[in-house]
Amino acid sequence: MEKLSIIKIGGNIIEDESSLHEFLKLFSNLTGKKILVHGGGKKATQMAAKLGIASTMVNGRRITDAATLKVITMVYGGLVNKNIIAKLQSLGINAIGLSGADGNTILSSKRPVKEIDYGFVGDVKNVDNQAIEVLINHDFTPVFCAITHDGNGQLLNTNADTITSQIAVSMSKNYETSIYYCFELNGVLEDINDKNSVIKHINSKSYSTLLSDGIIADGMLPKLENCFNALKNGVRAVFMGNTTILTKENENYTKIML
Amino acid sequence: MEKLSIIKIGGNIIEDESSLHEFLKLFSNLTGKKILVHGGGKKATQMAAKLGIASTMVNGRRITDAATLKVITMVYGGLVNKNIIAKLQSLGINAIGLSGADGNTILSSKRPVKEIDYGFVGDVKNVDNQAIEVLINHDFTPVFCAITHDGNGQLLNTNADTITSQIAVSMSKNYETSIYYCFELNGVLEDINDKNSVIKHINSKSYSTLLSDGIIADGMLPKLENCFNALKNGVRAVFMGNTTILTKENENYTKIML
Repeated sequence: MEKLSIIKIGGNIIEDESSLHEFLKLFSNLTGKKILVHGGGKKATQMAAKLGIASTMVNGRRITDAATLKVITMVYGGLVNKNIIAKLQSLGINAIGLSGADGNTILSSKRPVKEIDYGFVGDVKNVDNQAIEVLINHDFTPVFCAITHDGNGQLLNTNADTITSQIAVSMSKNYETSIYYCFELNGVLEDINDKNSVIKHINSKSYSTLLSDGIIADGMLPKLENCFNALKNGVRAVFMGNTTILTKENENYTKIML
Repeated sequence: MEKLSIIKIGGNIIEDESSLHEFLKLFSNLTGKKILVHGGGKKATQMAAKLGIASTMVNGRRITDAATLKVITMVYGGLVNKNIIAKLQSLGINAIGLSGADGNTILSSKRPVKEIDYGFVGDVKNVDNQAIEVLINHDFTPVFCAITHDGNGQLLNTNADTITSQIAVSMSKNYETSIYYCFELNGVLEDINDKNSVIKHINSKSYSTLLSDGIIADGMLPKLENCFNALKNGVRAVFMGNTTILTKENENYTKIML
């Protein structure tokens, strides 16, 4: 099977223009078929503040009311996505920007209200790998923002890590897929206070030990659960680290396989 | 050759939610291959005002400084485009939202500064009909916002009427194309004060007479120049009127052919 890389960048890269530019150069130099997924992070919070819309966070998650969804649609779907597309075009990549509504690529359902009403937040139901294949087979490079739709006309704010792994799982039917999570750390750390304490390899067995030893906790826990879920469903490998994991020079990152 | 309809909607339809919904229903019922082009009109002006950005107009045209371009990218490329896409999906149309940067579909150049510096405004240089054909041949329905790019990473605000006619001209290479300009009037009017005085047919000869009689003037002049330019370059027909020109019921509209 042909290889396909699915790369996710976090808010820290998007917020800083020179970091974004450096990343996009690395991304454009990556050989083979590829897909980019981005969030928008603080840019949406900043825009909401400018518009007098309060950002409500519960357990570190954003509550997406109608006004916040508008801001997210403007910032993620418009400002961030279209600027990434224009920059990738200037780097010779024929990028095409997508929300999950575009081409019906990612269908989700509004998260049911239990103790917390997250508002217009979507949980992914289906990724249309055939629609995405049409694009990549014609040398378009899809760039997804973290917005999906419910099929009934409603856009939904959706976790970018989840979108990444769900796309990767769906594309695994016809491609050998790898996920690259680029974030502010060099990888999964043994000691959160030592940025060089990168755990280079994690598999199912060592993951159990890391969990029982309490080394993986807090924000890293859902990220790794997400990774193993993807690996169990056909994804070959997950790489986590800073943006230079896209190059051959970096040997200090976390590689996760089953 | 297969038929292709290119439909442009103006700000008056986008600004009113029920008008937009009615239009999208008519658009979804239109048979055959089709492309939609939209501006964003007052929504961008309103958002700019909320953000404390003054909108400067010279001779009825918006001056697009860097802050205004950001707003346009958010509103046209994000808010308006993605909501149209989600609504069309709910109506069974596999819509895909595009700026001219996406798939490098519309390349433009920044308008040179003469007496007036229009700022980040683009004049269309090239429409990639092959990229658009890939999409429509795979049953995607492209929905363009009025933003293009210069190939060097810069997004540019671009007139939606011009984008429409340039797409139509480019697609005429392999399709029999018709343009539908949906706007607030029933068509080109003989008497601007009588909304029912629609001129039903215009051709090159009658156009000369209408011009010399001063019946076509002001805002209608560039619109019609644009139409004849498209017709001289391969477009078969241009229809102008309210949104019901997409139906068979409406017989009160302007049809323009060479």
